[in-house]
Amino acid sequence: MKKAIVLLSGGMDSAVTLYIAKKRGYKVSCLIFDYGQRHKKEITCAKRLARLTGSEYSLLKIRLPWKQSALLDKSLKVPDGRKFSGIPVTYVPARNTIFISFALSFAEAKGARAIFIGANARDFSGYPDCRPVYFKKFSALLKKATKAKGIKLEAPLLHKTKKEIAAIGKRLGVDFDLTWSCYKGGKRPCGRCDACRLRARALL
Amino acid sequence: MKKAIVLLSGGMDSAVTLYIAKKRGYKVSCLIFDYGQRHKKEITCAKRLARLTGSEYSLLKIRLPWKQSALLDKSLKVPDGRKFSGIPVTYVPARNTIFISFALSFAEAKGARAIFIGANARDFSGYPDCRPVYFKKFSALLKKATKAKGIKLEAPLLHKTKKEIAAIGKRLGVDFDLTWSCYKGGKRPCGRCDACRLRARALL
Repeated sequence: MKKAIVLLSGGMDSAVTLYIAKKRGYKVSCLIFDYGQRHKKEITCAKRLARLTGSEYSLLKIRLPWKQSALLDKSLKVPDGRKFSGIPVTYVPARNTIFISFALSFAEAKGARAIFIGANARDFSGYPDCRPVYFKKFSALLKKATKAKGIKLEAPLLHKTKKEIAAIGKRLGVDFDLTWSCYKGGKRPCGRCDACRLRARALL
Repeated sequence: MKKAIVLLSGGMDSAVTLYIAKKRGYKVSCLIFDYGQRHKKEITCAKRLARLTGSEYSLLKIRLPWKQSALLDKSLKVPDGRKFSGIPVTYVPARNTIFISFALSFAEAKGARAIFIGANARDFSGYPDCRPVYFKKFSALLKKATKAKGIKLEAPLLHKTKKEIAAIGKRLGVDFDLTWSCYKGGKRPCGRCDACRLRARALL
């Protein structure tokens, strides 16, 4: 059975991506990161989703001591709604590059043929490492980076809107109550941050 | 003063690269990894080299639980000399990709304009992530990966032989007694592994 690595954050998009990878017939190993994010709720959700789908997972702890993001530095405030322009303070420098690099190592070690990531470039927060051109360049790098040949980078939601992602997820049986989007880590989602706002619009 | 990140392993090549970056007028921040390698000698050397050159450093601890390399898995034997063909068992899947990704994050957070890596493609162990084509593709990715524009990837030793690297280092005042090459972690270098063999040939 062909194998794939799925980068699983515990949010909507990566949950749907996990179900897509399984639907396409892959035996999935999930890669979950504890990277010092503001709260652990999304990690709990990710582990639960992996177990629920019968996928094995690896939880990696990494630290970026240079912080520089409201997701890593609790002294920075997560803004409410889209009151900002440009790339928001929740941007973590090179986060997807780091995540995909580990996934590549994992994929080669496992003999996996694909890496799935839930990035999307339509209803997104403007992060540079969510753009199609970024994935195009990373795919080109992948071809030259390892001993293994032909590991593919798959971002099946890249061109979907959040509404379309929600619809695909519902069709595949994703229980969105098991996912977490809010940037803050309260008992309940704050309903006001960018991630909550995008989620609410999708699940309306 | 323009800033650079130098990936510092404690071996000959990265030591020379550190001195080259300083010679080119950069204020250097070194990035050192504890990635579960067989021994800590090279980390001790790297920290000492950073301090000696008045460079700040960040030591990052990462783990690749999938191992799959004689550098990470002590049950695998490091071969003596070049008795193998192809890519040796000391190859760590996607190691440079992971290292450069963290360096990219560090560079963006620091406002650095360059990442220096001591890779070389002449007298090397045959690792895919030491080849010129690999760095070419990574440079292309760098242009699209971050909010910061124009972070360059510099591999000044890429086309040098080990002998040339030693000569450059001597000219710049590198004390090679402060570097460590041996894959094993004995009191003294084993003198037989591929790294020892390449080093000895260079410093003759």
